[in-house]
Amino acid sequence: MSQITTFEINEPLDMHLHLRDGEMLKLVGPLTSNTFSGALIMPNLVPPVTTKEAMLSYKERIKEACSGDDFEPYLTLFFKDDYSYEFLEDVKDDIIAIKLYPAGITTNSENGVSSMNIETLRPTLESMSKLGIPLCIHGETNGFVMDREKEFMPIYESIASNFPDLKIIMEHITTKDAVELLDKHENLHATVTLHHLLITLDDVAGGMLQPHLFCKPIAKRNEDKEALLNAALKAHPKLMFGSDSAPHPKHKKECCGCAAGVFTSPIILQVLTELFEENGALDNLNAFVSLNAQRIYNKKPIKKTIKLVKKDFIVPAIYEAHGENVVPMYAGEKLAWSIEN
Amino acid sequence: MSQITTFEINEPLDMHLHLRDGEMLKLVGPLTSNTFSGALIMPNLVPPVTTKEAMLSYKERIKEACSGDDFEPYLTLFFKDDYSYEFLEDVKDDIIAIKLYPAGITTNSENGVSSMNIETLRPTLESMSKLGIPLCIHGETNGFVMDREKEFMPIYESIASNFPDLKIIMEHITTKDAVELLDKHENLHATVTLHHLLITLDDVAGGMLQPHLFCKPIAKRNEDKEALLNAALKAHPKLMFGSDSAPHPKHKKECCGCAAGVFTSPIILQVLTELFEENGALDNLNAFVSLNAQRIYNKKPIKKTIKLVKKDFIVPAIYEAHGENVVPMYAGEKLAWSIEN
Repeated sequence: MSQITTFEINEPLDMHLHLRDGEMLKLVGPLTSNTFSGALIMPNLVPPVTTKEAMLSYKERIKEACSGDDFEPYLTLFFKDDYSYEFLEDVKDDIIAIKLYPAGITTNSENGVSSMNIETLRPTLESMSKLGIPLCIHGETNGFVMDREKEFMPIYESIASNFPDLKIIMEHITTKDAVELLDKHENLHATVTLHHLLITLDDVAGGMLQPHLFCKPIAKRNEDKEALLNAALKAHPKLMFGSDSAPHPKHKKECCGCAAGVFTSPIILQVLTELFEENGALDNLNAFVSLNAQRIYNKKPIKKTIKLVKKDFIVPAIYEAHGENVVPMYAGEKLAWSIEN
Repeated sequence: MSQITTFEINEPLDMHLHLRDGEMLKLVGPLTSNTFSGALIMPNLVPPVTTKEAMLSYKERIKEACSGDDFEPYLTLFFKDDYSYEFLEDVKDDIIAIKLYPAGITTNSENGVSSMNIETLRPTLESMSKLGIPLCIHGETNGFVMDREKEFMPIYESIASNFPDLKIIMEHITTKDAVELLDKHENLHATVTLHHLLITLDDVAGGMLQPHLFCKPIAKRNEDKEALLNAALKAHPKLMFGSDSAPHPKHKKECCGCAAGVFTSPIILQVLTELFEENGALDNLNAFVSLNAQRIYNKKPIKKTIKLVKKDFIVPAIYEAHGENVVPMYAGEKLAWSIEN
């Protein structure tokens, strides 16, 4: 059997990305735009992105930080239950989706919705449904940390049933329950991160405590990880790759009161290639990391081919620039695949 | 109704304590000996305490660090499956118990037993049983972090049934299952920490990540905390207080790969008084924090009365001395009760 030593990924898309703003954006933007064709950019800035002006201006800052013309940031708005139909109609061609956060559920979500009551959400969701704007949801209750996503399943189901024409994306799913829900409602889709395909709570808190693997939703049990991995490896048609790569400076991760988020951007394609190769699923990787998203979001991304070669890559211990820094997943470790320059 | 403003605790005992060695011992020793009459000292030094000489010399260092003559350290040995009957007979009057660690299960437990096979353990356990030496156990498997204690229940049961005359203490129990097991076997007892009466996994990883609340066994669910608290508040006769107060310097807690352990020694009696008072259970506090342990271990501790007064106590942000430092639980926060000087 001949050994695979190179692999090509076409138009890789990261459908859930945090680029932040200011100097951090300048540091992390290129670490995605160098290797991805496009990315769905989350709107949880401080303050959150809720106006057309704020969104377009953020898009400009992203393009400046990322430079080059082979990367497209897909902008989103931060969900509010009082967006008017006229506002959404005006903005719809400039955004890819609207992201809903329950208030206080994760980083910079303080202005999220305080109630998931369907009648409160109905006006905005009806407008989005009519206008064909997809809804991305951070699906967690404020219950016990290991149960938050599972407890949100009935809310996903309720929104999916009440708005059958609304395209809903369950963001960064972490449980077997969420994987199973994908097949129950035509209009439910999902993203999954790289780290949730790789780790469980044991990796975060089973040995020494690993703040760089602490994220929201928190990593769950092995049976959950296996369900997510199986769905990814077969490129489940309703599942897209979305890294949820979320940079925080080192001093906000290694401290008392560490912020949630795993930073994976510079290692995603190398690790995905290794993971899909070792599971004999390389044929499905392009669907998982691009084609599924193109179909679900009806987007034609910028042409871009990334060539992976089977050659050791030592992950930097830290990325630093513009006075900012961030520690990546697998910092200082050796990966089996590299990106060809 | 008259308000209680003072409360006395007689002969407080901490039946599970880590004092470490060297400079750290000098820092933390007095933070227990100032307010406790006695404490069971865990033997997981590097190397572990496995000889009479090492144990007696450690006892001397503890007495020196703690000074004063109103504190008694109760020494333990680190369990080995090849201790001879003669050795145990020779050492039995100098120790209060022997502590068994499954290998690698927590801080400095690398030399623990590699198999919980009852036949491997039998010779030592039979000797201990005959000689009346109690067995303290860190009861966790190496399974999923939230299941480790629950999975250990059959092992506790097997040891309890096989050695009906052996006094067994389930150390730092964290689950409803362990509380329930107390009533199933005559010879099973337990310690519970302060922090496991107060926190769940939500406090460790439900908001920001809190390394100073990261411990082994990890804090569990609310139903577990409630079961532990109920047993403590009623001073369940087979349950003793054991803080598992475990100092690590700040830089080993607020870092990548944070060590497990919560440091509570200087705040235990204040917080226990508040907790028992607010639950209307002050009448049971002396049993929980002293009398139960006296009866279970058949010890007559040194006379010592600690007077608590209802007066604010601001917990220091850090304790520092001898070039060492440690951050206590509730660092910088205000407690409702103080110890009268």
